[in-house]
This record gives sequence, structure tokens and C-alpha cells, in this order.
Amino acid sequence: MLIVMKADASQDDIKRVLEVIEHLGFKPHSLPGENRTAIGITGNNGAVDPTHFENLSGVAEAIRVTKPYKLISKDLRPEKSIVKVGNSTVGGNELAVIAGPCAIENAEQVFSVAQAVSESGAKFFRGGAFKPRTSPYAFQGMGEDGLKILAEVREQFGLNIVTEAMDNYGIDLVEKYGDCIQIGARNMQNFSLLKYVGQTRKPILLKRGLSATLDEFLLAAEYIMAEGNYDVILCERGIRTFADHARNTLDLSIVPAVQRISHLPIIVDPSHGTGRNFMVNPMARAGVAVGADGLIIEVHSKPEEALCDGAQALTPKQYLELFEQVKAIHEVISTEKMTLDNSISFS
Amino acid sequence: MLIVMKADASQDDIKRVLEVIEHLGFKPHSLPGENRTAIGITGNNGAVDPTHFENLSGVAEAIRVTKPYKLISKDLRPEKSIVKVGNSTVGGNELAVIAGPCAIENAEQVFSVAQAVSESGAKFFRGGAFKPRTSPYAFQGMGEDGLKILAEVREQFGLNIVTEAMDNYGIDLVEKYGDCIQIGARNMQNFSLLKYVGQTRKPILLKRGLSATLDEFLLAAEYIMAEGNYDVILCERGIRTFADHARNTLDLSIVPAVQRISHLPIIVDPSHGTGRNFMVNPMARAGVAVGADGLIIEVHSKPEEALCDGAQALTPKQYLELFEQVKAIHEVISTEKMTLDNSISFS
Amino acid sequence: MLIVMKADASQDDIKRVLEVIEHLGFKPHSLPGENRTAIGITGNNGAVDPTHFENLSGVAEAIRVTKPYKLISKDLRPEKSIVKVGNSTVGGNELAVIAGPCAIENAEQVFSVAQAVSESGAKFFRGGAFKPRTSPYAFQGMGEDGLKILAEVREQFGLNIVTEAMDNYGIDLVEKYGDCIQIGARNMQNFSLLKYVGQTRKPILLKRGLSATLDEFLLAAEYIMAEGNYDVILCERGIRTFADHARNTLDLSIVPAVQRISHLPIIVDPSHGTGRNFMVNPMARAGVAVGADGLIIEVHSKPEEALCDGAQALTPKQYLELFEQVKAIHEVISTEKMTLDNSISFS
Amino acid sequence: MLIVMKADASQDDIKRVLEVIEHLGFKPHSLPGENRTAIGITGNNGAVDPTHFENLSGVAEAIRVTKPYKLISKDLRPEKSIVKVGNSTVGGNELAVIAGPCAIENAEQVFSVAQAVSESGAKFFRGGAFKPRTSPYAFQGMGEDGLKILAEVREQFGLNIVTEAMDNYGIDLVEKYGDCIQIGARNMQNFSLLKYVGQTRKPILLKRGLSATLDEFLLAAEYIMAEGNYDVILCERGIRTFADHARNTLDLSIVPAVQRISHLPIIVDPSHGTGRNFMVNPMARAGVAVGADGLIIEVHSKPEEALCDGAQALTPKQYLELFEQVKAIHEVISTEKMTLDNSISFS
Repeated sequence: MLIVMKADASQDDIKRVLEVIEHLGFKPHSLPGENRTAIGITGNNGAVDPTHFENLSGVAEAIRVTKPYKLISKDLRPEKSIVKVGNSTVGGNELAVIAGPCAIENAEQVFSVAQAVSESGAKFFRGGAFKPRTSPYAFQGMGEDGLKILAEVREQFGLNIVTEAMDNYGIDLVEKYGDCIQIGARNMQNFSLLKYVGQTRKPILLKRGLSATLDEFLLAAEYIMAEGNYDVILCERGIRTFADHARNTLDLSIVPAVQRISHLPIIVDPSHGTGRNFMVNPMARAGVAVGADGLIIEVHSKPEEALCDGAQALTPKQYLELFEQVKAIHEVISTEKMTLDNSISFS
Repeated sequence: MLIVMKADASQDDIKRVLEVIEHLGFKPHSLPGENRTAIGITGNNGAVDPTHFENLSGVAEAIRVTKPYKLISKDLRPEKSIVKVGNSTVGGNELAVIAGPCAIENAEQVFSVAQAVSESGAKFFRGGAFKPRTSPYAFQGMGEDGLKILAEVREQFGLNIVTEAMDNYGIDLVEKYGDCIQIGARNMQNFSLLKYVGQTRKPILLKRGLSATLDEFLLAAEYIMAEGNYDVILCERGIRTFADHARNTLDLSIVPAVQRISHLPIIVDPSHGTGRNFMVNPMARAGVAVGADGLIIEVHSKPEEALCDGAQALTPKQYLELFEQVKAIHEVISTEKMTLDNSISFS
Repeated sequence: MLIVMKADASQDDIKRVLEVIEHLGFKPHSLPGENRTAIGITGNNGAVDPTHFENLSGVAEAIRVTKPYKLISKDLRPEKSIVKVGNSTVGGNELAVIAGPCAIENAEQVFSVAQAVSESGAKFFRGGAFKPRTSPYAFQGMGEDGLKILAEVREQFGLNIVTEAMDNYGIDLVEKYGDCIQIGARNMQNFSLLKYVGQTRKPILLKRGLSATLDEFLLAAEYIMAEGNYDVILCERGIRTFADHARNTLDLSIVPAVQRISHLPIIVDPSHGTGRNFMVNPMARAGVAVGADGLIIEVHSKPEEALCDGAQALTPKQYLELFEQVKAIHEVISTEKMTLDNSISFS
Repeated sequence: MLIVMKADASQDDIKRVLEVIEHLGFKPHSLPGENRTAIGITGNNGAVDPTHFENLSGVAEAIRVTKPYKLISKDLRPEKSIVKVGNSTVGGNELAVIAGPCAIENAEQVFSVAQAVSESGAKFFRGGAFKPRTSPYAFQGMGEDGLKILAEVREQFGLNIVTEAMDNYGIDLVEKYGDCIQIGARNMQNFSLLKYVGQTRKPILLKRGLSATLDEFLLAAEYIMAEGNYDVILCERGIRTFADHARNTLDLSIVPAVQRISHLPIIVDPSHGTGRNFMVNPMARAGVAVGADGLIIEVHSKPEEALCDGAQALTPKQYLELFEQVKAIHEVISTEKMTLDNSISFS
């Protein structure tokens, strides 16, 4: 924390700030400049709340310099985390591709997509049994029946199941039937849910909120890890901006930003991240080229009849094309050892 | 729903779209233009999903013209809703002022603020026992002990208690101790929570999410009402934008936008909406002038020692100044009957 | 400027930073903490570029603490500026209302609106002879002929003319025919134009850019003032956000933010700031309540036939209603001396 | 254009809308639904202004269905444009790499960078002689002297010169000394400048504005082309959002969005698009993988001493690494013929 005093702050103002710092148990460091004084703070464990100072007389600004990260940080764990999901992993040398329909609608639909996903060589299958929908009158998912269909997909195709839960009830069920619990963008700061899911022992796929900053995203992961579950996979899925040519703005620069600070793996969702069929393939290629550890892709055998998000779903044929293309790019990336070491340490 | 065909769409493309519309049980209306054909859809109850059409051959765009609103709409209830909260109301002729500390920290702090709130003539007291915090290491609230202190405030000062709940457990407790259950911005699209709170019989204060559009905001209220709880108060509390001079951008134009479509009352939160002490008073005045039904204001006896959000809290003295000023503006607004009838109907 | 070193920065890293600071002619102040070292810089005139440091080995962050403001700042001129425009002023005790059509279309249209504006008691007339239009095929304005019509309005009604210029040619003409030169939002960072207009001796109405931060807005004013023209009036006209219920998001919190730092007057444009007729009146009221020095309002005798921006134009009748309402609110504001002293000084 | 009437619109309201449409010379198509009537419009050349209708009695919404594009559109020119710049091209099979320092500071600095750029095999050199700076007190560029240095770079290294102009004076000079005139993001809607540059016969590099939608971006190009200069290269350089981990949010999804509508080539600027050295390489890779026709990259021999934007400049060594990596990805893209045909036609 750095306290910047106003140019016309009095000696009494400065003294008062020093006292408050000491009163809080920290150590003040006065730094007089030509025009104004700045006061540094040390001795704090974790972040100091700037609001202790901002309204004191003579204070111009209180600037945070310490990040409130612990468990997600490379300071704690310099090497990259590899998260085990079912019989495979996310974060290692292989590109993790998670594919499947937006919502589980019926067994037949799911099996025809699973067939294509399995043939592509992907190791993970996605599909929602609980669907967060903007309108209460939209299809809300099949619930436990949907999860049973997913469990059968694992049986028959050997695919590891990634599926969303929206509340404690759903988490208990997904823990039972699935291999990885997805926390959706709209729940990224549902702190009660994060704590609950932090107590499970299944890996978590945590999607970035629509208006989440890097810090908020990482601290949501920190919530889960603080409860003892360290198997967190981050997922960029597009943010909300003014741009209207896509449903969201896929913010790929978060990938190197996360990799600089955290040891957690991060994947990219070009389906929700664009919301438009024709953008999914190019943005998937970009996601792999930027250095993401994997992709999550919506596939539907008849997108025009999908009960949810059909506009962004690929047909199995389009999906197989995408898979070939991203594999080729991933190979180049890996061969050329393109991922730089961008680590930074906060203290 | 309006389907706009591409200029070069074939007659077969058009025929296929007509068939899909009929297959879905709706009625197509073909509208051939000089350069392209558009196809209207009627006969639908509620919104049609554009994704049924967007990827069909020859389709340029599928445009929604029907809003998925029902219960929140002036179509259903043309007169304004007045929501009873404890022994007072929100949405009537009187300006509803809800004031109190961000977090309940201890009885002494709470009572000194409650004294000032009560003296001002406000009818509602706020204060958080469960605090949604970005970091897991920040103060998370006093829980049930905090609610007990709030219940005592009601006893002693006759103030009606508005307080946040973040999960089912919290909702049960707030229903027991409080008069109005607040759903915070980060939970505005926690649909499981909305459904649960829709089954209580206490009024709900629903805060707009940081990146919620008007439609999403109104549909979150629709979720609650669809469960049978019609006592919903909306609250604008600032959205996330690029602007960095305030913590959020308080979007006051949502007030007339809501009033044009919905019968629900809407209040404004200039404390979270700006995050900066010196902006709270001017933005509170603006909120009243724009026609909001009330304000929610953070007050703390010693802002610089607050455990949360001290930078935006007013001192009791600043709060009393604000109260006088907004009362004067509200009087002008009321005398001049400034609120126009801006109703619009969707069908 | 404050340089924050990484936790694992070496003594050599720190030494190198100290050397670079001295090499640049500034004075370094080392501030060792428990976990990391921070280094303050003094002796600089104006802002130091953080990029000198950000990529040096061992540097975590370079944080600016000095603002690059001079002429716009209250440090330089603590009392508020009152800008003379024709025979009236902006920034004094009276609310400045500027009203008129978006574009000058013909003399008849302009005169019928001018009649209403004059009757209301407003002192300023607006109307565009040069129109910045998104499409090259949209109406681009009447040019010099439009300016001549505006000059006649001044003759006949005694109204002071505020009108936009988009290039040097237009500025020369507006300087000749008008009383105040408007620089539009899309030209707020057209630095060549700012410099040119800074050399005129007519007052400037500078509109905030659609994505301008507070700093960028104030520095655009600084560009004009640095050329010797100190008569700058700022104007908030809405920013671009994800919100889609209005054409722009009118960011009223910029008004107290500007008033805290700068002596320049600031007005609000609820017409462009919302783009929707029914929002103009409530947002105009809010703009006055927040403490703005004036309003700029679009009025058209037949909005549905306007060649530009008809959706937001008020009819003369609606305008007169608005004028009465904002006058009443301004009176309350003035009586109650509601504008707080929010000054802050940067050095 | 589609006019949607309110549910309670009267027959007279509908009749009035039909009359206004006919009065404007268009053909109305009434489409009565169960709950409301919609009215289509045909016979228009170019877009109809929705504001003619939005405030008529009984009108709920006026929805545009025709895009105001002409010259930029694939409807006009289905095959992709290849733009000649000096002795090379942008938009063909080869990846166009434009590299060089942000600002021209002195001959020595420029030549040492040009050496590296030339060795890499890139065909284009960038460097600013006129610099748009947020603060009037920041370095504004060397002007004509800088352009002379650039002209020497072309002489000695055979590189084609891309450099920015900010006003008519600068355009005349860049036309004389350079090979491609860059219009910066802050001038993307400086319509006077667009018209002026449309009259030159040098190719134009048009950067997307910080808050420009797809339509606004394409219409800015349309302004240039409407004056007769068809050699426009588009450039995505990051938009302004709430995200604070990078200086801007590089919006790569605009690349397939542009390619679906327009025949113009589009390149990506990962240097300004991120503002941070360590993100430039991964985002450059992503830009190539998404299908862009080229990259523009900042390179400086001593980034920490750069007079502008040093934080994002690559060292020559980092640049050469980047060049190798993007070349490898571009090869994969080309071999696999990954660019899909995403054309759409508007009429």
C-alpha cells in the first residue's frame, strides 16, 4: 500500500496517517517529495484495505501494491499444474479438447454427438443437464436424467464427463455422475457455491464471469482452493463489451496474463465466446495459438433444432475439421516451444 | 420473430424456412422485397429461439420482436406496484430511503448509525450480515449474530430491515430476522437462488448485475415472480465499464427504461454505484431527480475504520445533509408531477 | 512514479533501476519492505513515462502518481471558471441551456424552433451545419448556408450560437458566424484539430469521446488551453458500454469527478446521451441535480421528419416542459448550496 | 426496415405509419399478428432512418434490416482484394508483416531496427513521424525530418514504408515520402480526414477506433472508398473495455466478422492491442491463426529508452523469434486451407 498525500497536506495530516498505519499494526515509511509526500506501508500479511485511508484529511490516493493471491500464484508453486480429469489430464503437453452439445436433450442426440467426439480423438465430453437460462420460460435442462445419459456416454465411449452445476444439489449429483464440475460464468462470484465446490474432490472447470477482471477471476479460483480443492481449470469464455458482431468478446490476452501469474491451466471456449457458428473454428485456432491448454466446443447433430444455443453449435463434420486444424497448430506450438516463461511474483 | 433472407437465397431456401416455422407449430408470413425476402412469425406463445433459423441455408438474420416478459410487464398490470416492506412501502408517493453500514461489525457501531438514520426520518435500515467479497481472505460478515443485531435495531428504532442473503441458508435466516431480502449484483443471475427466494413471502430487493442488460435485469425479476413472489423492488447499483473515475458507472437511464416497460418500483444505490464518498450526494440527488422510488445509502460512524467499503460510506453528518437535499428535490419532482407516462406494451 | 520491484529482484536489479532514474535526471528514493523494495521518483517536471522501467529486470510494476495536468487544474486556478459565450456566460450561477435542432435543414424549421427556445428564456441556440455521420451516404449538413441561417437566428432572437466544426475550414467559418465552437465526441482526440481550435479566440464546447477516460477528457481540454485558448466548456454526452436500452450510457458521475479536479465548467447532453425521446427529460433533470452548469438539448418541430437524430429530439412543447422542470430543480440546488467543495490537488 | 407496432396501437396509428412510409416514397407491407401488427418497408435505396418512425403514436420499435454498405461489400466484389503497397502486397497468400519503432526518434535508432526487420524477411517498415499523444506535453514526433529518415530506410533496405498522418498537412507529406498512409484509431471517425485521404492515390491502413462497432469500422472504410481510393487495409488494434490486464482488449473475432462481409484485407496489431511486451508474441500467433492477412509490430532496440510506448515494444531478438513462430503457423493455415468462405450478402 502506498498513500499519496495532497500537495497541500499539512504536517498534521501526515502525522495522522502515520498514526493510523501504526494503529493497524503496520510499519509506515514516509517518502517526502518536492511537491507532496508519499507514505509506504510494510509489515502487512495480505492486502491492506485502502478505504482506511482514502477519506483521511490530506490524502490524495491510496494505491495497492500487494496482490491478495496465495494459492493460485506461481510464488507458491512455480511449476505448472496438471489437473487429472477422469482418466486423462488438462494442463500437460497434450491439447485437451472438450466437446459435446450445449444441453442434454435425449439419449439419441447425445450418443450421435459422442460418436463423433470419440472418433476425433478428444478425451472429454460436455453437455448440460442443468442450464442457466436468462428467461424462466426457457428450457432448464433434464436434471438427473440428463446426468445418467452422460454417465452412459462415459461407459460406452470412454470419454470423461464435464458438466455444469448451479447449486449444492446439482454439485452433489455431478460429483456422483461426472468427472469434472463446471461452474458457469454467471456463478463465478457466487461465493457460497465456490466454497461448497471447494469441498468436493472432483476437478473444477471455472468459467470467467462476463465482467470479471483478471484479479476477480483468479480470486474466484482462490476461493475454491482455499477450501482444499486444488484441481481448478480456468476457462475464458468471452466478456461483455459494446461490440455487437459476436455475442461476447473472446478476450484471448487473458491466457498469457494468467500464465504469467498462476500455475493453473486455462482453456478457451470459442462457442460461447462468439455465439456464432462461423467464428468458432477461427477463434479455436487462435485460442490454441495463443497457448491455451485446451478448448471446449459445442457440437450438435442438428444445430437448427437444438433447444439451446443452436446458433453457435458446430455440426459433427465442422467439429472434425476444427479438430484437425487445431491439432496441426498445437503441434507447431509444441515443436517450437513457443510458450515463454512470463512469470511474475507478488509479495 | 422476423427472418431476413440473404439477397441470393433460393426459392428452396425460403421454402425450407417456411417448413421449419410450420413444423414448430407457428404461422409464417412471407414478405418479399425488391432485393430479399423477409418472413414474419406469429402464433407463438413467448419468444421463439432465433437459433432455429440462423444457420439455415439462405438466412441472413433472425430478429426477435417479441419480448419474453410476462409478470413484470405493464401489459399485465398497467398501474405501478407499491411493495410493502415491514410497516412501510416502496413505490408510493414517498421517497424510500434505506440507510446503514455496509457490514454489521458490532452492536455499538450499528446502533450509533441507526440513531442517525432514525432521526433523519428514513424508514429502512440496511447492513450486511453475509458479505460477498472478491477475496476469500476478506471479512465475510457476522452471520446470524449480525442478523440478531439488526432485529434489535427494528425493536429499538422501528426501522424496517433490508439485508442481503447469498444462499438458501442465508435466505431462511433473513426471512426470519429481516423485512426485505436483498439479492446482490453478483447473484442477479444465480437462477437457483432466484427460484428459492421466489418461494419466500418477504419482499425482495434485486440489484442489477454488473453487466446485466435491461432484459436480463427484468427477466431476473421474472424468475422470482414466476415462483409466486410478486414483491420485487429493482435496484440500479452501477455497471462495469472502461470508466475509471468511479468504481462503477451508475446508469441512471435504466430508471425511465424500466418505468416504460414494468410496473415494478426501482431505487438507486449511489454508494456502490460510485464507490467514492464525494460522489454519493450528487448522484443521490440525480437518482431522485430522474424519478427513482428510493435510495440505498451506506453510512458509517467511522468510515476510515470500516471493515468493508469505507471509501464510499458517508458519515452520519454527511448522510443528514444528503437526506435534506434529496427530500427537497423529491418535493419539486412530486409537485411538478414530473414523472411522465412512458408505458410501452410488448406482445 | 513509484517502481515496485518483484519479491525476487536482486540487488543488481535495484541498482540498475536507481541508475536509470538518475540517468533520466530524476531523484530515486529507495523504500525497502519486508518482501520487496519499492522506489519512488521525485524531481520530475510532468509525468514520467512508466515504460522506461516496466521491462527492466526485477521490476513488477511502475505506478504513476503524478497527473500530467496543468492548466485545467484547480491547483493552478482554485476558483471556478466562468466562460463568456456571446452576451451570456456558462459556469456562473445561472443554468446554461443550449437548445435547437440536431441539423440545420432550412430557415423555416430553424426559426420555428428558435422561437420556442427564445420564449423559454434560454440564452443559447444549437444546430449543426456540419454533421459527423457514420455513413458517407447520410445527410452531411448544409455547410456555410446553414451557418448564415444561424447568424440570422442571433440577429432576430438574440440567442448565442453554439455549433460544431469538424476541420480547420469549418472552424474558420464557425469563428466567423458563431459564438461558440463545438468539438464533437468523435474529434475529442483529433489532436491537430484541438491545437487549431486552441488558436482561435472563441469559446470551445468540448464533448467527451465515446470511450474517453476522465484523464483523456481533461487532457483534450489541456491541448486547447496549451495553445492559449482558456475558454473551454466540457460536455458529458454519454459513453459506449454494453447497455442497449439507450444509445449511449450517460455517465453523470463525471460531473463531480471533473469538479473535484478542474475549474472548467461542465454541461450535460441528455439528447445524444440517451438517444431516446422519453429519456431526455428525466436525464436532463438528473444532470441539473448532479450539479452540471448547463444542458444541451435537441428540439425539432417535427421530429419524425428530421434529417438526423429525430428519435431523440423533443417537440417544442416537450422542451418547454423540460425547461420548467430543470429550472425548478436548479433553484433548489442553488438555494440549498448543494455543490460541495470536492477539490483535490495533484503535483 | 421493419416497424413493430405496440399491442394497443389503434387502426389510426397504423394508418399514419403507412402514410409516412408512402410519403417518403417507399412501399409499406402490413403484417398483422395475433397480438400486434408489424409493417415492412421496401423500395428504399440504402438505409431508411428509423427515427422517422420511432416517436409516431403506436410504434414500439423500428428495426433496420438493410445495411448501408456498398463499396466494402462482397456483394459488390465477391473475390478478396489484394492491396499493392510499394513493391509488395497485403491480402494475398503471403503474410504481411509490418515492423518498426513506435516513433521515429533518430536515424541511428531507426536504422538498427530496420536492419533486423529487413533480415527477418518482412517487407514493410513502420515508424511514426507524427504521434497522437494523450497529453500535449508528451513527445509529438519529429515531423518531416522523421519522414526523411523513413525514406532513407526504403532506399537502403528496400522496405515499404507505412506511417501515420493526423491531418491534411501530414497526409500530403506521407503521400510524398511513404508507401502507405496510416489513419490511427483516434481518427477513425474523423470524417473530414477520411474524405481527404480518399482523394490520395496511396493505400490506406485504417485502424479500428477504440469503441468502434463492426458497422462503424466498415463505414469508415466506405468513406475513403466513396472518394475513389479503393486500396484500404483494415487493422484491429484493440478496443476499450473494463478489462485491465492489458491496455486494450484485442478483439480477434472481428477478423472472421469482416471477412464474412467485406473483400478488404485485415491485419492485427498485437503491440497496441495489448500494450504489454510479454503478450505481443502470443497474440501475434493468435492473430495469424484466426486468419488475418498480416501483423503490425513495434520493435525498438532499447525499449526502456523509447520516447513512446516502450512497454509494448519488442527487442529485435524478440521480434525475430515472433517472426519465426508466426511464419510456422501461417504455413499450417495455408496448407490446410483453413480460411472458410463465410460470405453473407446485404441488400
